[in-house]
Parts: sequence; C-alpha cells; structure tokens
Amino acid sequence: MEFSSKLLENAVYEMSQLPGIGKRTALRLVLHLLRQPETQTQHLVKALGTLREDVKFCKKCHSISDVEVCDICSNPNRIQDIVCVVEDIRDVMAIESTSQYRGLYHVLGGKISPMDGIGPQDLKIHTLVEKVKSGTIKELIFALSATMEGDTTNFYIYKQLEGVEVKIATIARGIGVNDELEYADEVTLGRSIINRIPFENALKSS
Amino acid sequence: MEFSSKLLENAVYEMSQLPGIGKRTALRLVLHLLRQPETQTQHLVKALGTLREDVKFCKKCHSISDVEVCDICSNPNRIQDIVCVVEDIRDVMAIESTSQYRGLYHVLGGKISPMDGIGPQDLKIHTLVEKVKSGTIKELIFALSATMEGDTTNFYIYKQLEGVEVKIATIARGIGVNDELEYADEVTLGRSIINRIPFENALKSS
Ligand SMILES: [Zn+2]
Ligand SMILES: [Zn+2]
Repeated sequence: MEFSSKLLENAVYEMSQLPGIGKRTALRLVLHLLRQPETQTQHLVKALGTLREDVKFCKKCHSISDVEVCDICSNPNRIQDIVCVVEDIRDVMAIESTSQYRGLYHVLGGKISPMDGIGPQDLKIHTLVEKVKSGTIKELIFALSATMEGDTTNFYIYKQLEGVEVKIATIARGIGVNDELEYADEVTLGRSIINRIPFENALKSS
Repeated sequence: MEFSSKLLENAVYEMSQLPGIGKRTALRLVLHLLRQPETQTQHLVKALGTLREDVKFCKKCHSISDVEVCDICSNPNRIQDIVCVVEDIRDVMAIESTSQYRGLYHVLGGKISPMDGIGPQDLKIHTLVEKVKSGTIKELIFALSATMEGDTTNFYIYKQLEGVEVKIATIARGIGVNDELEYADEVTLGRSIINRIPFENALKSS
C-alpha cells in the first residue's frame, strides 16, 4: 500500500498491529474516524491510554479490577474454598453470566504455549500453587480451553500440586444443550458419551 | 456484558464504536493491548490522535496529504486536464496501484446518501463543479461504486454540469479479467455484454 500521507500511514500501521486487523481494515477504521467528529477519536484515544496506564489487577485473583480486591473476591457470599482457574477475564465474564457458579476465580493471564514463547513463569501459576498449598482451597476447577495449550497448562498445574490435598476438577465438555447430535463434531460427541452422567444428576441440573 | 472495571468497560465501549467491531471483538482487542508492552498502546494512541488533529487535505483534490498540494496534484508529469472522481483516498490508492492512470483525482469524501443523511453539500461537489466550469478540465471519469448512492452522485454532478463543455465518462464494469463467466453475477455479466468493446481495442489494451 502506497500512502500519500505519513500521518495516515502511521495510524494505519499501528491499527493493523491489532490481532485480526489487516491493513485494509485498519485503513477503513482510520478513515471512519476521520469522517467522525474529532471528539470520537479523542474519547477512543483517552479510554485506551487511561486503561493501559491505570489498569489494576485484583491482588487475589489477578482479574482486571479498578480496586485492589475485586468485587467477586471481596464478596463474603461467594464460596471461598472453590476456585475456578481461567485464562482471562472474558472467561470470568462468561461464567458469571450463567449465574451458576458461586465460588472464586483465579485468572492465569494465558496458557502455556511454547510456540508463542509463553512459559509457566509468564502466567499467574505460582500464586495459584501457593494459594492451594496454604490449605484454604478445597477444590480447583480447570476451565481452560480444550486445546493442547489448555491441556498442557492444566497438567502443569496438576503436577505442581502433587501431594497437596485438593480436589481438582475440569468443566464438563459435551454437546451444547440445544445442539442437535447430527451437527456436533465427533470429538465433542465422543466426550459426551465417555463423560456421561447419571440420569438422576441430569434431572437435578435441569 | 458485565464488566468488573469501569476503565475496561469504557475502553471496550469506545473501541466498539468503530464500524464492524462488536463488543466481543472490542474486548479481545483491548485485552490484547493489555498483554502487550505499554509502548504499543502509546504508539497506537499517539498515531490516531496526531492524525485526527493534524490531518490535512490537498487543497486541489481533497485527498489526505501532509502537504498543501499532494504529490499527485503537484506532479507536472500527470495529465492536468483529466480528472477521476472518487469517493475516498482508498480509491485513489487502488487506481494508483494499477499504474494505468496518469491524470488527476478529485476526492468527494463520500457519496450522496439520504439514508445516512449525506447530501451534496456534505461532499466536495461544489469545488469540482467550479473546477470544471473554470474550463481547465477536458474529461471527468466517474469511478464511484456502482450502487444507488454512487449512481445518484454521478447523476447529480452530471446535472450540475449541464451545458458545460466537458467529456464525462465512467469506468468500465464487467467480468474481471481472470473471472470465469459461469461464476459471474448476472448484472455484471449483462453489463459486460451491453458495454462490449471493439475487439481491436481489447487487443490494444492487453
Ligand atoms: Zn479478585
Ligand atoms: Zn491533490
């Protein structure tokens, strides 16, 4: 792409550094901003800059929070000895929106991924292991994605906790509640059968 | 979406104001920035802010330019009396990349679109009409998109120039050079036939 303006080229370049935003999309977005009142760009720039500068993470669960200890961690009504281990705040939001979970979270900040140069030391694994070893946690629930990276991360944490008394579970995978069997992928359907649950339990949870 | 952080919510909101960026994508992009070094956000914010503040438009063709008169308008080797009328700078870039056009451009800044509240007065139509009426232009080439808005805009300019001596053309529409007829849409194929050109001309242009 040949640009007639360095300012434009630079803005498009920086925009295209975002994941999934190619040069063409970046140009479209930047031109959109130029057509809108200047205040829209100002608000965007301010919101991103302020977040990046002032972002805080809950010192207990490492989720993004404007206060030292997030609303979930500081809520006395949450079950304090069950911790759900997730990759990032999106997972917390997704699980919270189900209203089915009353325990706490631990946000790792990613998954172990040698391909991307992400090792255990880049994630909040150490604090999780310490937390569990301190003896205040009864159950961990792994809710990472069912990918090689997710499985590797689960297994790494599992090994770190060998000999420690804690129940370790992983969220159930299976056919979506409203999905038709014929359209499900084989791996998911397979897991659904292997991890079948007593019918009485299913009756209770519906 | 329930956010645990106002700063995060605000950044996601502003990001989702961009066209084609939903709340989920906005959250993904913002979390990506939080995982990258702070400098990446700083560069993005600076590039967008500076562009929006300092953006200049060529006073001849209205294309985005860092100087008063853009490189194309100030190039004495360009044909000065042929003007290609386009919607925005992306079209200029697309046509320039073909290396097939040696004339000048006029960037309207959009198309007439009553649905979006865009009338002739919101576009750089007046300066185009003045330019043509001044008698220095021999030919206009409409290169707007073949939509109702594009056609409306073409026709509006055409009517404004009634009685003015200027050749008005529109870019050829037809089957793409490497396209198979069977996969072409009917309208395009129809236009290709209606606007067929002498075989000798085709020989020359290939
Ligand atoms: Zn917390
Ligand atoms: Zn120009």
